[in-house]
Amino acid sequence: MTEPDQTPGLSHYRADGAARMVDVSAKDVTTRQATATGVLRTRADVVDRIATGELPKGEAIATARIAGIMGAKRTSDLVPLCHPLPISGVEIDVVPAGEVVEITATVRTTGRTGVEMEALTAVTVAGLTLYDMIKAVDKAAVLTDVQVVAKSGGKSGDWSRTTTGAGA
Amino acid sequence: MTEPDQTPGLSHYRADGAARMVDVSAKDVTTRQATATGVLRTRADVVDRIATGELPKGEAIATARIAGIMGAKRTSDLVPLCHPLPISGVEIDVVPAGEVVEITATVRTTGRTGVEMEALTAVTVAGLTLYDMIKAVDKAAVLTDVQVVAKSGGKSGDWSRTTTGAGA
Amino acid sequence: MTEPDQTPGLSHYRADGAARMVDVSAKDVTTRQATATGVLRTRADVVDRIATGELPKGEAIATARIAGIMGAKRTSDLVPLCHPLPISGVEIDVVPAGEVVEITATVRTTGRTGVEMEALTAVTVAGLTLYDMIKAVDKAAVLTDVQVVAKSGGKSGDWSRTTTGAGA
Amino acid sequence: MTEPDQTPGLSHYRADGAARMVDVSAKDVTTRQATATGVLRTRADVVDRIATGELPKGEAIATARIAGIMGAKRTSDLVPLCHPLPISGVEIDVVPAGEVVEITATVRTTGRTGVEMEALTAVTVAGLTLYDMIKAVDKAAVLTDVQVVAKSGGKSGDWSRTTTGAGA
Amino acid sequence: MTEPDQTPGLSHYRADGAARMVDVSAKDVTTRQATATGVLRTRADVVDRIATGELPKGEAIATARIAGIMGAKRTSDLVPLCHPLPISGVEIDVVPAGEVVEITATVRTTGRTGVEMEALTAVTVAGLTLYDMIKAVDKAAVLTDVQVVAKSGGKSGDWSRTTTGAGA
Amino acid sequence: MTEPDQTPGLSHYRADGAARMVDVSAKDVTTRQATATGVLRTRADVVDRIATGELPKGEAIATARIAGIMGAKRTSDLVPLCHPLPISGVEIDVVPAGEVVEITATVRTTGRTGVEMEALTAVTVAGLTLYDMIKAVDKAAVLTDVQVVAKSGGKSGDWSRTTTGAGA
Repeated sequence: MTEPDQTPGLSHYRADGAARMVDVSAKDVTTRQATATGVLRTRADVVDRIATGELPKGEAIATARIAGIMGAKRTSDLVPLCHPLPISGVEIDVVPAGEVVEITATVRTTGRTGVEMEALTAVTVAGLTLYDMIKAVDKAAVLTDVQVVAKSGGKSGDWSRTTTGAGA
Repeated sequence: MTEPDQTPGLSHYRADGAARMVDVSAKDVTTRQATATGVLRTRADVVDRIATGELPKGEAIATARIAGIMGAKRTSDLVPLCHPLPISGVEIDVVPAGEVVEITATVRTTGRTGVEMEALTAVTVAGLTLYDMIKAVDKAAVLTDVQVVAKSGGKSGDWSRTTTGAGA
Repeated sequence: MTEPDQTPGLSHYRADGAARMVDVSAKDVTTRQATATGVLRTRADVVDRIATGELPKGEAIATARIAGIMGAKRTSDLVPLCHPLPISGVEIDVVPAGEVVEITATVRTTGRTGVEMEALTAVTVAGLTLYDMIKAVDKAAVLTDVQVVAKSGGKSGDWSRTTTGAGA
Repeated sequence: MTEPDQTPGLSHYRADGAARMVDVSAKDVTTRQATATGVLRTRADVVDRIATGELPKGEAIATARIAGIMGAKRTSDLVPLCHPLPISGVEIDVVPAGEVVEITATVRTTGRTGVEMEALTAVTVAGLTLYDMIKAVDKAAVLTDVQVVAKSGGKSGDWSRTTTGAGA
Repeated sequence: MTEPDQTPGLSHYRADGAARMVDVSAKDVTTRQATATGVLRTRADVVDRIATGELPKGEAIATARIAGIMGAKRTSDLVPLCHPLPISGVEIDVVPAGEVVEITATVRTTGRTGVEMEALTAVTVAGLTLYDMIKAVDKAAVLTDVQVVAKSGGKSGDWSRTTTGAGA
Repeated sequence: MTEPDQTPGLSHYRADGAARMVDVSAKDVTTRQATATGVLRTRADVVDRIATGELPKGEAIATARIAGIMGAKRTSDLVPLCHPLPISGVEIDVVPAGEVVEITATVRTTGRTGVEMEALTAVTVAGLTLYDMIKAVDKAAVLTDVQVVAKSGGKSGDWSRTTTGAGA
């Protein structure tokens, strides 16, 4: 379990409970960055095929990476109350490691709100893309531990996940 | 770890390793269904706010559900090698339970390929939508255990996850 | 006010009130057609400019028509509980008439559900496109009387609006 | 009928009549807001079902609201000559009232053009979503009186519809 | 110049010149395939970098291929009068060859219309993606000779381009 | 062949060859413009039909123009490593000329990166739209010579293609 913070409520909802896209007009335009991670858990032999075995050109990893980058750009189309943001940079690492593939996405913008959702969307779309590739050989794969690990910029300042976070 | 199966390779790739959208023209058009689940892990007080506290109209859960249904329809736009499919039905449950919110999506089609990816996409987009709502009050939330739990229809027949799956 | 019919409930919602995309797997694949209409109300001098005055190539009407056709194809992206449908034909008429521009869209599919929503979306997107063109010269324009006027195909059979409909 | 204003032409078209997306590079970046309204006209018993009757969680209204918010973000994808805009806030009210459901959308941006089209698109997509829910029980519903009621920001200054507008 | 054929008119337009999406309801659902090609012309040193030089993982080619596959799925969103089609397979080759990169896309469907436009869209989006990668090192690159080279299925039967086509 | 320039590498890729969306946060926001051209090559009788013959309202050219403008707005959805940009203006010329139709697109933005890709996408989508219209009467049409002809704004300054470019 994680530590409570001071924020009193869910700003995506009005006092009457109705969903809204929060007005951010008054927020400063600053450079903001967020990093999210996630893990696709499967079998070692499947990870091996993704990493080196039968895919000489490495297109499995490239496909996941491209899908994640494109997914980041679609965030506000997918998440109803997200603001559209001018994403200024995305990097995604897709790293095979034993029985898992680790996915890390860092997104940067110069805008009025943070890019946590964009980083999380990049990770999940990259993860779903890997899932799609391997589901014929492992129906039991799991996409797991999708979380923000660091953010910077904006009024709330820098933040990074402590080592004993909720998803550990 | 999960059990290996007999499928020899990753059909999304050619012998030379290049990504492709596999030709499914010769597959039968049958009714197919898949169910996926996932969990958003946060704090009990946050789950409480989502479920009943300050949201009299229940729009947090409704927003996640609607986002998941719309996400299912965008699957082939997001996952590069997925076939576009005429989705014929989607149901999503978003159930607050202590420190977590459990998400279950069932998707049905009458088509040439299964709808596992559509069910997984529905779960992840619903989960990201919840994440977006609560990130101001819990930066450390985690979307986890996203997995297919059952599928039916198609040549490979019915399947359901055993109770000791990889993501448990 | 219109006549009540016999249908007992709103099928887009479950007994517990949750939204869903209704399962249409068991419905027949038949050819279905729907026609919708709508009216953009402005000033006669504005309609005149749209129709003939300063636009020798007629691109205002063509732009609205193209937008409507493309809008019809986006219906299931916009309306959350709509099924994606393989639209097989669209025709749109955009007819200047005094102080109004009349819009009529007919959409056809061979599928499991009707295309009323596609016809309505075509009309509204065409109407919004006209609104966009003229808003600099008439802030007070109104898009009005958007309604289905006829449908055919499917189990419920043919239907057409009586002359004294609700929106008259 | 509404009052003519001084603007001489339709700026979306060149002197030769060709459609274009008007260059707004030289316009100031300011905070701009627009409010649009519309009405879905059906039967009192249908409105009653939407509002309270069989939908305990209120997901019909929430679904329309979410669809409207997401629709606002798709405006420049739908309306050919609209500029893409960084929407900074959206609020939508969906209010059952006798035989009608009243829809009001307010959209805000900090950009180079106004957000009337975004507000109108939010209203129409919310209205189409309601139409979709009830079309099985009222084929004769009408989406009507879709119009801008107020705008502020930008060079042309504040404006609000007089009580005897064209759509009244 | 190519040989005239017997088709009397442009079916995308009515007798009055208005654009429409042609009704294909009466056409047979058959398996259809189309292959299109195109060429990105740049400098040999740039092609070399794409192919082998500084890109050990080959992600430039993979990126173009993935973009092309995803582009094929967006065809009916981009080309106004195209019918949405259930694409059943896509293969794309991206082959560096001296001063050019050759792109070939083959698309298959089981539907009521052909997939020439999907194959052409796949080629152009893959080509634009390559262009984007190299524009910093070669502003003068050209995407050229984009054309259908073969199609099969449907009433009009098989066709392939003769060696002395218009674009040679 | 074109002249080599000084840029040492392909910035869309990291040292390890992985694709990324380059971070442009540090670049200046300036007004930038790019013009691209392309040619659809067909037969003179087909061009004649497009231009005047059977299409009194000129909707073939208008349809291509509208598709190109809308395509420009979709660039970052189609080209994986493109940054989303607030396009501030688009003009497209579609000019029948003998056996060809010449397409020219000029796009303007106030942003952190150039709009060459947006101009190229506008040209190709307009070209594909024309191709779609005429493919029933000329299977052998070719979309060719798609290239940037001029750009201005940004750090690299103004540039225009010399008369003996690679695609001539």
